[in-house]
Amino acid sequence: MRIDLNSDLGESFGPWPMGQDAALMESITSANIACGFHAGDPTVMRQTLELAKDRAVAVGAHPGFPDLVGFGRREMKASPAEVEDFVLYQISALAGMAATQWVSLQHVKAHGALYNMACKDRALADAIARATAAFDKGLILFGLPNSELLRAGEAAGLRVAAEVFADRAYERDGSLVSRSKPGSVIHDRQAVVDRAVRMVKQKEVVTIDGATITLQADTICLHGDTPGAADLARAVRRGLEDAGIQIAALKG
Amino acid sequence: MRIDLNSDLGESFGPWPMGQDAALMESITSANIACGFHAGDPTVMRQTLELAKDRAVAVGAHPGFPDLVGFGRREMKASPAEVEDFVLYQISALAGMAATQWVSLQHVKAHGALYNMACKDRALADAIARATAAFDKGLILFGLPNSELLRAGEAAGLRVAAEVFADRAYERDGSLVSRSKPGSVIHDRQAVVDRAVRMVKQKEVVTIDGATITLQADTICLHGDTPGAADLARAVRRGLEDAGIQIAALKG
Amino acid sequence: MRIDLNSDLGESFGPWPMGQDAALMESITSANIACGFHAGDPTVMRQTLELAKDRAVAVGAHPGFPDLVGFGRREMKASPAEVEDFVLYQISALAGMAATQWVSLQHVKAHGALYNMACKDRALADAIARATAAFDKGLILFGLPNSELLRAGEAAGLRVAAEVFADRAYERDGSLVSRSKPGSVIHDRQAVVDRAVRMVKQKEVVTIDGATITLQADTICLHGDTPGAADLARAVRRGLEDAGIQIAALKG
Amino acid sequence: MRIDLNSDLGESFGPWPMGQDAALMESITSANIACGFHAGDPTVMRQTLELAKDRAVAVGAHPGFPDLVGFGRREMKASPAEVEDFVLYQISALAGMAATQWVSLQHVKAHGALYNMACKDRALADAIARATAAFDKGLILFGLPNSELLRAGEAAGLRVAAEVFADRAYERDGSLVSRSKPGSVIHDRQAVVDRAVRMVKQKEVVTIDGATITLQADTICLHGDTPGAADLARAVRRGLEDAGIQIAALKG
Repeated sequence: MRIDLNSDLGESFGPWPMGQDAALMESITSANIACGFHAGDPTVMRQTLELAKDRAVAVGAHPGFPDLVGFGRREMKASPAEVEDFVLYQISALAGMAATQWVSLQHVKAHGALYNMACKDRALADAIARATAAFDKGLILFGLPNSELLRAGEAAGLRVAAEVFADRAYERDGSLVSRSKPGSVIHDRQAVVDRAVRMVKQKEVVTIDGATITLQADTICLHGDTPGAADLARAVRRGLEDAGIQIAALKG
Repeated sequence: MRIDLNSDLGESFGPWPMGQDAALMESITSANIACGFHAGDPTVMRQTLELAKDRAVAVGAHPGFPDLVGFGRREMKASPAEVEDFVLYQISALAGMAATQWVSLQHVKAHGALYNMACKDRALADAIARATAAFDKGLILFGLPNSELLRAGEAAGLRVAAEVFADRAYERDGSLVSRSKPGSVIHDRQAVVDRAVRMVKQKEVVTIDGATITLQADTICLHGDTPGAADLARAVRRGLEDAGIQIAALKG
Repeated sequence: MRIDLNSDLGESFGPWPMGQDAALMESITSANIACGFHAGDPTVMRQTLELAKDRAVAVGAHPGFPDLVGFGRREMKASPAEVEDFVLYQISALAGMAATQWVSLQHVKAHGALYNMACKDRALADAIARATAAFDKGLILFGLPNSELLRAGEAAGLRVAAEVFADRAYERDGSLVSRSKPGSVIHDRQAVVDRAVRMVKQKEVVTIDGATITLQADTICLHGDTPGAADLARAVRRGLEDAGIQIAALKG
Repeated sequence: MRIDLNSDLGESFGPWPMGQDAALMESITSANIACGFHAGDPTVMRQTLELAKDRAVAVGAHPGFPDLVGFGRREMKASPAEVEDFVLYQISALAGMAATQWVSLQHVKAHGALYNMACKDRALADAIARATAAFDKGLILFGLPNSELLRAGEAAGLRVAAEVFADRAYERDGSLVSRSKPGSVIHDRQAVVDRAVRMVKQKEVVTIDGATITLQADTICLHGDTPGAADLARAVRRGLEDAGIQIAALKG
């Protein structure tokens, strides 16, 4: 029984720091590194790659919409062809920088609005999967369980990883409760740890309205941009280990 | 006796076209493709790579300063470390996109102000050479004959290519006459063709003040953004061929 | 009987020219000038303002989404508050530059996807109207006839102008036929001229399926980025004048 | 005897916060607000203007180079004409947003590399002064004492303000000791307060090598981006007040 722990890192930009990358690296096994479109710049990318290598954390590309001021969180009606081109560009940029440090990318996780849109829109999902597979058939594509993104990845011949969120509430259909609704984020640390353990051990989660649903969990996302993020990550990791679960990167 | 003919291509951006890429590709053997910082975007890059592959033209990265509105033509005091990072990012982005079309990069030619500064400033030249060599020791680094850029490339263990301009006037020290001076650009087509032939055959050029100087010429740059550029390129190519010179990419 | 003729101008950016601004200025009475977000830069803006002043063409702000590579043509889910802020920023930037040439803005016309979205979405329309009215209650807000944009403008106490397109086909509900459908753009010059005259004189247009509908027309948009755009503009202007219609800016 | 206290504010961007604007506003009398080129975005600008209005702090434009990732700190060889255009654009954008809150700009202070270059380069200084005067002859132009920027402002008919730094060491010629040298920044709070008082009362400062030089001081810059910045600002203000000096905006 094993699980991967991932986090979005390298989201500083120029003079603006973001997140607690070094502290989070102590708990996670996979880092999703921003590639300069929604966050990150070449120098931040290099530094984040060095940090990940130093901590033996697997790295993946975290491509986003070309929307710096909106942090890639705003939906954009880019065509699938445009998405394929700019996702490939971003994967390539990070992978080339990683290669100079003798590091290969493990995975690709789309960011923000691009991720959310592609989980539901097969044409966008296919565009991301095509870019990923064209770059390297050995890359693992991240997506929500049962999403179009995972289906597109499989159709493109890629290994896929179902991503779950231990600190987010779920609807009965397996989707995340919108952040605009009360109770969408779980703040109680022990509750988050317990949910993480149950997600991995029983492959199930209790929804916001009390039902129990099954959920495939290959990797758990730990947020890095909230106060106490590093502490929560440590607690989740320890809780999982205490439950006898091995914490390891997907290609560990 | 052989020579490479190169041109800066892929400098369209979003809705704005630039240059006559398809027409130039008929005459040149090496394309320097913009990488999204001073010009080019992921879609333009893919299209330019496809065009180059179709015409069997060798491709290289053409990294520039992050200055879209200034087209990378304005000097910026970026540190050598910053330059190394963003040149590596740009090479990586283009190389990854090229690889999905089974194309490998042949060379790296810095753009505009970055090129001109690095020809004179060893620290910048070293930064570009380090990024290039870190990515792939097999890449050829372009620079002005006898420049710091070529010396830095050699010191980094790279093969280098001395680049000359058949339609630009030269000073006695081998530098280009500033564009702000009269006579800096040679408009007479036959004169340009004759200079090109002499540069390759005799490795010499007549300076603006009538002296004859020697000049190493591994590749001739043909401008792509002027009216009649494609015609001039054709004329130079034919003139060289008529003089018995083989036109071939550096890794032809 | 009079009509305003408007065109989107100042859409060059840095080294990339676009359109035939000087030629179009001979035929139009109102120029919508890009403000640096989807196109235009401070130097292009100043030059376009100078040109408009020289030709006695009224000027308006043409604010768009912050999406240079997509030319503001891609829908973005920006919040109404964000839209209000960046529309105000763009109006302010242009108005301040105009004021140094003793020119006041006449109107505001949103660009591309922002315009199309705001014609249907009242929250976005209100955001644009609020920014416009906050800057200057005397500005005229452009929008499609019967659109949310016009209603929002009126609600904000602004004078509004209904904009029609003589070279675009219309649906029965008064909306434009999507560019993806055949017949959406009318290429026959005389047909365009005849439609323009009928729109102004009878306030009606024949739809793509042959029905006749009424349509309020305060200003006719002439495209500036197509081959023959300047010729078409001249023909439309002459046709209108020959029909006894006065061509004048809205605040003429 | 009176002095203005200024600080660079509104330097957050999109998702990235910077500085302690609200805390600093308690101590300063003039806020230099970033205008979207080196930092700031339309939403940040509006919020900063609201904050300044609420605290009755005078506002000025803080225009910088178009270099977000470099935070406007890298020298760029933009032409005086380009600088004039983009400075005017930035002043206009902020002034228009301020006007909707019934606030007029008090001053213009160039940012970072643009400020430093213009203090020494008369052509750049003239470009900034021209843009400022063209927008509003009543604006006050900030610059180092005895700099080209102040001379250009006076030549353009503007009121100027000599800016000093209480926490920076000075050379004998009145220039700031380069940050790369030891001792360039003074960290002892009482020393900073004492220097501020002496600058205002005696119009003199002790240089890094122990000499006493005279220095015109119309406004003291308080840094906002360092830990303890708000505390230091409070201490300087209190020290000045205790010495009987009135703290007031330049147009107070």
